[in-house]
Amino acid sequence: MSLEVVSNTKCFSGWHKQYRHQSSTLNCAMRFAVYLPPQVSSGQSVPVVYWLSGLTCTDENFMQKAGAQRIAAELGIALVAPDTSPRGDGVPDDPEAAYDFGLGAGFYLNATQAPWSQHYRMYDYVVHELPELVESVFPVSQARAISGHSMGGHGALTIGLKNPDKYSSITAFSPISNPMDCPWGQKAFSQYLGEDKSLWCDYDSSVLMARGGKTPVLVDQGTSDNFLSEQLKPQALTQAAEQSDYPLTLRMQQGYDHSYYFIASFMEEHLRFHSRYW
Amino acid sequence: MSLEVVSNTKCFSGWHKQYRHQSSTLNCAMRFAVYLPPQVSSGQSVPVVYWLSGLTCTDENFMQKAGAQRIAAELGIALVAPDTSPRGDGVPDDPEAAYDFGLGAGFYLNATQAPWSQHYRMYDYVVHELPELVESVFPVSQARAISGHSMGGHGALTIGLKNPDKYSSITAFSPISNPMDCPWGQKAFSQYLGEDKSLWCDYDSSVLMARGGKTPVLVDQGTSDNFLSEQLKPQALTQAAEQSDYPLTLRMQQGYDHSYYFIASFMEEHLRFHSRYW
Repeated sequence: MSLEVVSNTKCFSGWHKQYRHQSSTLNCAMRFAVYLPPQVSSGQSVPVVYWLSGLTCTDENFMQKAGAQRIAAELGIALVAPDTSPRGDGVPDDPEAAYDFGLGAGFYLNATQAPWSQHYRMYDYVVHELPELVESVFPVSQARAISGHSMGGHGALTIGLKNPDKYSSITAFSPISNPMDCPWGQKAFSQYLGEDKSLWCDYDSSVLMARGGKTPVLVDQGTSDNFLSEQLKPQALTQAAEQSDYPLTLRMQQGYDHSYYFIASFMEEHLRFHSRYW
Repeated sequence: MSLEVVSNTKCFSGWHKQYRHQSSTLNCAMRFAVYLPPQVSSGQSVPVVYWLSGLTCTDENFMQKAGAQRIAAELGIALVAPDTSPRGDGVPDDPEAAYDFGLGAGFYLNATQAPWSQHYRMYDYVVHELPELVESVFPVSQARAISGHSMGGHGALTIGLKNPDKYSSITAFSPISNPMDCPWGQKAFSQYLGEDKSLWCDYDSSVLMARGGKTPVLVDQGTSDNFLSEQLKPQALTQAAEQSDYPLTLRMQQGYDHSYYFIASFMEEHLRFHSRYW
């Protein structure tokens, strides 16, 4: 478990750090970012919010644009942001380097189809390898929450819903709420998982939420989001929650779009939400 | 004065907007960004903080990374961020496209030397054309303050110090404090202004501050900034302030570097500083 330090930057009296490590799950070198709040300097073990980013992002977008460190520093929360797919020589990409499949578009699942299955195992990376690494190296407690945006909102919801023992709360911005029923999800799932749609259900948050559960979920969705009706479909999540009486709070935020300007506007409420449940 | 809307994004209940216009000062099309806080929706005229960015930046870096909108929304401040140089076909660049001269490196001065003097007039653009445009189009008052980072810190200090009637307060992060005496400044001034160093004084904030003045100035400088000793030289500013009894508050911030992670950490204090003086 050797970690190479890529950067180390003071921020709101804590530290933003980037690391590179060899991932045995993904069979490639991976970079991730950590924000350690100032409380760790006084020996405190702090809870962790894992952030999963959207299509095309790396570990950097969230740390640079969401304004989360200020609140994490106040509340004493570590933030961990992985990349959005495996990377590097030998990791296959979409033949046309499309933004919505392959590199930068791992969809937080374990691919079963060639040539993807050797590297595209972001589900196992996020659920197992990354937290084990984080908890072995950094002064963090075992209190975990998970959050994300768009494809990362899909990741946060599916991972959180399937692992109620690991994550005490889940939040998402503009998640791909019903990937089985939208172009982004269908493109990715058919190639990563094959054409048998019964296998897709395990990575669809609306299907999972309809099965019930108790982990508190907060979702924010902008009404002026260009992807709202074709790709995101939050109404599927609402229907699933009604069906299973799931504790979902889904807020339609008037006039907001799909950008980090939206995320930044409500980041504080998401971190305060998580901090109520550990 | 026709303005083309480039983008319009809701953020902290206000609006981040980008515009393009033909600048008569710079003889090219320019893009700039404005954040309008929610108070303008209820008919209020709000004060403006002008933000000048550093080398290589555009209007976007500050708006995406500084986390200023949250505080601007709370305090009812409009933010205006111009680009860092003229741009476009026909605007000359450094022959080697260096990051520290030419495009992205206008140094907020009026060039006097060919081929720069036809376009590189960022001083007049920031002091005259841009505020006149902003005040003719947006619901802002005539209360103005100015702030910036690195090359933009130099810009904010020199422009603010020379125009005490226009700006009620000045702040800077990691400014190039004595450009006559550092490689970045000497490279730019010798080409934009020629070799007569007596003409450089008018764009050196330490020289200007030594002449005295009353506009309140706050400067934050990280102690782990890679550019501190060779390029930034805040001690020149301190000495100038002692010489003229200038109201300068210069804070060395332990462990912070030159990045927007530093800026974001103290942005709130800078906006609250400005809000005390209009």
